[in-house]
Amino acid sequence: MDLKPTKPLSGFIELLPVQQRCFDECAGRMLNVLRVAGFNQLDLPAVERAEVLTDKDNWDEIETQMFLFQKGDTKMGLRYDGTVGLSRYVAGHLNDLTFPFRASQFSKRYRGERAQRGRYREFYQMDMDIMGINSLSTNYDAEIISVIQRTLNSVSEFIGENAVRVGSRPFWDALFDYLEMTDAQKKDVFVLIDKKDKMGDADFAEGLRDTLGDDDKENEIKSVFTDGYSGFLNKSDKLNLAISELTDFMKILSAFGVKNAEIDLAITRGLAYYTGLVFEFKLLNHPELGTAAGGGRYADLAGKFSKNKIIGVGAAIGFSRIFVALMESGAIDLSRFESLVDVSVLCMGNENLSYAVSVLNSLRDANIATVAYLDAEKKFKNQIEYADKIKTRFSAIIGETEVKNQVVALKNMVTGEQQSLSVADVIKMVRGE
Amino acid sequence: MDLKPTKPLSGFIELLPVQQRCFDECAGRMLNVLRVAGFNQLDLPAVERAEVLTDKDNWDEIETQMFLFQKGDTKMGLRYDGTVGLSRYVAGHLNDLTFPFRASQFSKRYRGERAQRGRYREFYQMDMDIMGINSLSTNYDAEIISVIQRTLNSVSEFIGENAVRVGSRPFWDALFDYLEMTDAQKKDVFVLIDKKDKMGDADFAEGLRDTLGDDDKENEIKSVFTDGYSGFLNKSDKLNLAISELTDFMKILSAFGVKNAEIDLAITRGLAYYTGLVFEFKLLNHPELGTAAGGGRYADLAGKFSKNKIIGVGAAIGFSRIFVALMESGAIDLSRFESLVDVSVLCMGNENLSYAVSVLNSLRDANIATVAYLDAEKKFKNQIEYADKIKTRFSAIIGETEVKNQVVALKNMVTGEQQSLSVADVIKMVRGE
Repeated sequence: MDLKPTKPLSGFIELLPVQQRCFDECAGRMLNVLRVAGFNQLDLPAVERAEVLTDKDNWDEIETQMFLFQKGDTKMGLRYDGTVGLSRYVAGHLNDLTFPFRASQFSKRYRGERAQRGRYREFYQMDMDIMGINSLSTNYDAEIISVIQRTLNSVSEFIGENAVRVGSRPFWDALFDYLEMTDAQKKDVFVLIDKKDKMGDADFAEGLRDTLGDDDKENEIKSVFTDGYSGFLNKSDKLNLAISELTDFMKILSAFGVKNAEIDLAITRGLAYYTGLVFEFKLLNHPELGTAAGGGRYADLAGKFSKNKIIGVGAAIGFSRIFVALMESGAIDLSRFESLVDVSVLCMGNENLSYAVSVLNSLRDANIATVAYLDAEKKFKNQIEYADKIKTRFSAIIGETEVKNQVVALKNMVTGEQQSLSVADVIKMVRGE
Repeated sequence: MDLKPTKPLSGFIELLPVQQRCFDECAGRMLNVLRVAGFNQLDLPAVERAEVLTDKDNWDEIETQMFLFQKGDTKMGLRYDGTVGLSRYVAGHLNDLTFPFRASQFSKRYRGERAQRGRYREFYQMDMDIMGINSLSTNYDAEIISVIQRTLNSVSEFIGENAVRVGSRPFWDALFDYLEMTDAQKKDVFVLIDKKDKMGDADFAEGLRDTLGDDDKENEIKSVFTDGYSGFLNKSDKLNLAISELTDFMKILSAFGVKNAEIDLAITRGLAYYTGLVFEFKLLNHPELGTAAGGGRYADLAGKFSKNKIIGVGAAIGFSRIFVALMESGAIDLSRFESLVDVSVLCMGNENLSYAVSVLNSLRDANIATVAYLDAEKKFKNQIEYADKIKTRFSAIIGETEVKNQVVALKNMVTGEQQSLSVADVIKMVRGE
């Protein structure tokens, strides 16, 4: 019989235990930041109705981007982000939730496209959103940025420092109005701005020229990328409003203690959702990763699910993107995650098993990570080799003498030193008391 | 425009924040037990190749039981249990892992069948497995049972006490041989035994009669359910071996400190996988839930993926089955999970925002769960109503006076008592120092 493949499907992540321990440690720290910040941790279904996932009718095109399937008459699929499920959940639970409502999600998302380098088909993102009914101060936008920075700072020993750049969709809207652009031009220019980084300056300029057919307008737009908003102060009320919203916002960010924050109007966060301020985080030591986290404000989060107007500000951290990439490139030193447990109990012969198990239980009761080698008839050599391989800090060796004296022969696996100790003293020693 | 549905797909679980906090607290405690017991927490893909998920060729039948889909030429689907992915992973990483290898998984699984009461289409199970190459002492089977009981005990305040019953597949094999049954009879009788609880005693007896056509054999098999193994001591070497394995095992369980353990040969754990001892846990206060956890030993875990013989003992806890059912029935008192945070910072006017945010930051820095009401122009009434609704223990009210004196008006939301305190004293007060 042919053996089945042991590799996961391409684009699906599978970590080794040492990597998984690092991944879990980082997730745990970041989730604790979110808990302390009062975010309601939600765990929504990974499968949604197709009509919830998409408005499009072009089923074939959608099928290439998503994992879709059908059960009976119901088309459904795997979620591609956290926002679509959150919108549905909040709209369905308006009376169960208190607003402003803070929600976080740490969950797997799915993209059906062919996997590319650094792009996965199953990946974790960590989302945080704050939602209000009918109104929501932009102070919450500042809080979201503060909380993202706190989550990233909680793992800075692994990923280094971070920086955030803040853009404004209203600024571009105001500028386009000021330049008296047509709706078609607005749309096309926004696509160009969104793709500017990928297309390069020359192609960007050419695109503007083709769309606008006006040197002045082209230069005004290009000036934003060199001089920011400075040329547009007092050009229109709408521009002034957008600029003062942005500059006031930076002061609030500063009150929140956010570091490395600057305005960058080139940040637009693509075409969908966002209607207000937008922002992106980078890791200063790892520019190769691109955007580590990003988000912004949407004026009507759940319009497709509810007649109530839910205003939201939200962001997603590219958790798998950051941590899987940095572990695989060796940028994160995994040596401190190599050790599975503090103590390995080694039992020399089945006649000593009861005592060995009682020692195992006592250590586990004391919350000390402990395993036992329970093939008690195996030679000492095999057992100590096992303890060595799992990089245990101590081995608690138990033979006839230890049972008779109700002690443990505790071997420090780093120094090789060995001493005879009571279980109570073993616990103290391992804890470093 | 018609609004989209806000309910999740049937059979998919979606908890309210208060339920989710209870769910997460229980998961966290149980996962810590597994960590302390030295289990490698694995997080494997939720999507596997169809050929990994199943050996069957009857695609239509499989489709009704699973969520399957196709991308390009590759048929794939959502995992229905943790074992299939684990087998693939271990077989693919034999040289990266140290054996005996302890693995745990806490993840979502999927069943495509129509949802029934108490049966979900997306649900969490918590798995633990210990695997060895070529040999694995049954002492590890005892450890698995001990660890399951430890995980369940860690949440006993919510789910009450548990009990375990242990069965033996080798006992039945030995009995069938002793009764000189044909292979066809063995298979049919085993199906009957597996379904005995559902079919009732009369139908069970009739089934035996139809299959065996022999009153003596029928009565011998029926005697197992009334008298256990007692009638079969010294009937054959194979029976003696199976019985002594089982009775010796109960002594090791006792050494592990496992409580409420008994032999029950009616426990067989269905038709697949298992080849050795098998076991099932029930919750003593919640017999309506049926089996809370179950598992057993398999002689060749990964035979379809590897030529190496991987022997395993493993179990799964029906995590969603237990906790979702008990929360929904009201059996778990959720009142202690009602409070989202310890402190709500209420800010009276935008001019006080910077100071309010600094208080918020200080409390979060001190790991005190804190939110702030950042629509600072909203009336006190609205803000205190919010604090009331999220059942915060304290409100930290900040107005002009507090900013001037660099203090906080801390209101105990239970007693209504209010006092003016420095931020350092607020931290002490909230911590109960």
